Amino acid sequence: MIILGIDPGYAIVGVGVIEYKANKFKVIDYGAITTSKDDDFNDRLLQIHTRLSKIIAAYKPQALAIEKLYFNTNATTAIGVAQARGVCVLAAKQANMDIAEYTPLQVKQAVTGYGKATKKQVQEMTKMLLNLETVPKPDDTADALAMAICHAHSAGSLSEKLKNMKFN
Amino acid sequence: MIILGIDPGYAIVGVGVIEYKANKFKVIDYGAITTSKDDDFNDRLLQIHTRLSKIIAAYKPQALAIEKLYFNTNATTAIGVAQARGVCVLAAKQANMDIAEYTPLQVKQAVTGYGKATKKQVQEMTKMLLNLETVPKPDDTADALAMAICHAHSAGSLSEKLKNMKFN
Repeated sequence: MIILGIDPGYAIVGVGVIEYKANKFKVIDYGAITTSKDDDFNDRLLQIHTRLSKIIAAYKPQALAIEKLYFNTNATTAIGVAQARGVCVLAAKQANMDIAEYTPLQVKQAVTGYGKATKKQVQEMTKMLLNLETVPKPDDTADALAMAICHAHSAGSLSEKLKNMKFN
Repeated sequence: MIILGIDPGYAIVGVGVIEYKANKFKVIDYGAITTSKDDDFNDRLLQIHTRLSKIIAAYKPQALAIEKLYFNTNATTAIGVAQARGVCVLAAKQANMDIAEYTPLQVKQAVTGYGKATKKQVQEMTKMLLNLETVPKPDDTADALAMAICHAHSAGSLSEKLKNMKFN
């Protein structure tokens, strides 16, 4: 299963593409879609959608794992992030992908087994699980990869559960 | 100039298409894109983008006039509306349309000349300016048409100003 993890934003969209097969992870690609604050906000949404659609077309992931949005204290930022998230989700739906949403707590638990893990612990575990030499930068990219791992674990354990059910 | 007015939402997107030429309004089409609460939220975003893109392809408006988002008390609703707004704006950008944003106050002033006008007054004025027999329903549709009128007035007065400038 190829999984696309996304950390949504309008200035930086963290992107991680991994393959999860026979309980093993393989990194396919990762990076960030960035847009300039000098560009019109609506144009930045178009840039994000266009570039993400190209990434999806290139790697054909089956699933998108994306953070469940919650409100932070900065309302203007939250409105911007929500709009960016909308166009990311749209790109995935247009490619018939499954979409799964996780909270930061779920990601921490899935990656480190510990809900109170620090950001640094999550990043180190992500690096280890994916056999990377360094922690990917920016943080948004590391977060996107952790999100993809979280989905692999959730989807993986689900398929394990299904295998063990009596009617199989 | 053909103008598309949008009142963004995820359950109901109000849509109004008008033509503004020689200081006169002509209604081209209006209605609402509705999605079901029984559908997955991400699928509703896809439905909105698909239907709005068809409306844009059919009428080829030059400009989108859309409400500037502000925060209301319901954070969950606001996040949903912002995501829906993102895919609406994307559809317009993908069709190379200009995008203009107005506050409810600007719309009231543009349509009725009075910033403290009631919703009903704005609706009645919209009906009159567009030569409609009744106030369009739902309210979202009436709001979308008022938004389009607001842009016509703003864009109209701008072009008048440009005409009167000395370098012409």
